[in-house]
Amino acid sequence: MDHAAKRPIGVFDSGVGGLTVLKALQERLPAEDYLYLGDTARLPYGTKSAQSVTRYALQCTRLLVDRGVKLLVVACNTASSVALPALEAAYPGLPVVGVVRPGARAGCRLTRTRKLAVIATESTVAGGAYQAAIRELCPEMEITALACPLFVALAEEGWTEGPVAEETARRYLAPLFNGQDGEGREGGPDTLVLGCTHFPLLVRAIAAVAGPGVSIIDSAATTAAEVAERLAETGLAAPGPGPGAARFLATDGAARFARVGGRFLGRGLAAEDVSLVDL
Amino acid sequence: MDHAAKRPIGVFDSGVGGLTVLKALQERLPAEDYLYLGDTARLPYGTKSAQSVTRYALQCTRLLVDRGVKLLVVACNTASSVALPALEAAYPGLPVVGVVRPGARAGCRLTRTRKLAVIATESTVAGGAYQAAIRELCPEMEITALACPLFVALAEEGWTEGPVAEETARRYLAPLFNGQDGEGREGGPDTLVLGCTHFPLLVRAIAAVAGPGVSIIDSAATTAAEVAERLAETGLAAPGPGPGAARFLATDGAARFARVGGRFLGRGLAAEDVSLVDL
Repeated sequence: MDHAAKRPIGVFDSGVGGLTVLKALQERLPAEDYLYLGDTARLPYGTKSAQSVTRYALQCTRLLVDRGVKLLVVACNTASSVALPALEAAYPGLPVVGVVRPGARAGCRLTRTRKLAVIATESTVAGGAYQAAIRELCPEMEITALACPLFVALAEEGWTEGPVAEETARRYLAPLFNGQDGEGREGGPDTLVLGCTHFPLLVRAIAAVAGPGVSIIDSAATTAAEVAERLAETGLAAPGPGPGAARFLATDGAARFARVGGRFLGRGLAAEDVSLVDL
Repeated sequence: MDHAAKRPIGVFDSGVGGLTVLKALQERLPAEDYLYLGDTARLPYGTKSAQSVTRYALQCTRLLVDRGVKLLVVACNTASSVALPALEAAYPGLPVVGVVRPGARAGCRLTRTRKLAVIATESTVAGGAYQAAIRELCPEMEITALACPLFVALAEEGWTEGPVAEETARRYLAPLFNGQDGEGREGGPDTLVLGCTHFPLLVRAIAAVAGPGVSIIDSAATTAAEVAERLAETGLAAPGPGPGAARFLATDGAARFARVGGRFLGRGLAAEDVSLVDL
């Protein structure tokens, strides 16, 4: 048993969205300790340039490495889209898992029609990382990528059900799945990848528009499965049995992080559970 | 005629929202030159702490002062709420106009029932600057302050009309103006201050819920009127006749700034019109 196995898993995101990934990790790997960093002072990453996001991701990683994490989960689609090569180059000994490749892999595995849709923030869509990861696995895949930035605001506001969420989902997704006129569309995508950590909170409204024939992939669960594999491969799994602890760091607004974050984590968080850090 | 009068007016905001203020300034004071700075790398300010927002505002002001502005408009409600004392202390010779006091003053002037409502971002509401500014002018005012963060996302997405905007306005505002049951409420506020520069884009949806008896105050126009007064007082008005020029600076994402900003400015902006700057 490597002593390193007792060290925590580091998880970072631009804010609270990555807590859906932490939740999936805790469910899948309950014996592990976790150190979560939300870079709330600079959220959202989704509207920022690749260059800025890469710089922020390097700073987040430095802080988590300094605190001794054994494996890094980039629980932010924007950062996973643009910053992984820079992180892997800067920390060659550190296993790094992003959320893009696990979601892309699950999408390729699940589709029967080879027609995939990915919904994400503006910059994730524009950056093209999902499209590239999917094409690498399955070059002939037909991919539709669509930016749905309002879902982020709805998740943060807690308006995950009701007419605003339903109408927003309809406006974004009906053209994709049902055609503009509301009639069933033959030949639409049969699989939908949620390419933003905020989107699992809106899965009911999204599924209602996509319809029962469409598989929806939550990249939090697929990322947790990939982390389990990487721990097994590297011999870094916690000696267990757990349950492990989770600690929370934020670069700004601990009270808001706790209040909004609780919805993403699926359990209450108090402002005292969150420590402020500078990057 | 002071040579200083020929210098531009500096305007800053966390992003594109302040362009509604610039638009009002250009309409009211067409002979002036303007230098607009959107701190898009760090938007939104509305979810960040007062300490961070003050630090950012000082950096924005330093850049605009270095470029020779004669008067500073803080076209961001969050920064106007928390940072004006620090800016005035750091730059004692510079006239500084925020967007909070003009809106508060117009609200106090217009209400007949002494019942005012203010809608804004979370941090503007929590910071209490509108409430304080209104109470200073009229201590016995009955004030309701309500955070409506989804309006920001709707304005940026361009969904300013249609069912999502209408339903969002209804969910936020119907309890204020009509009661939860949709019945007319006697004794509700007769004046509504839009305490966020994004909100004028949604004025139709907001007015539809507030009803015809409620005066809506757009702080962009009231701020432009205050700037006109300050220029007259200080002898700094441009020799004119104009039209003056406007230049645009952003700390990230020039293409997105131009695309989204055009909606706020009410005229097309090209990415080439926007220069990237570092703070």
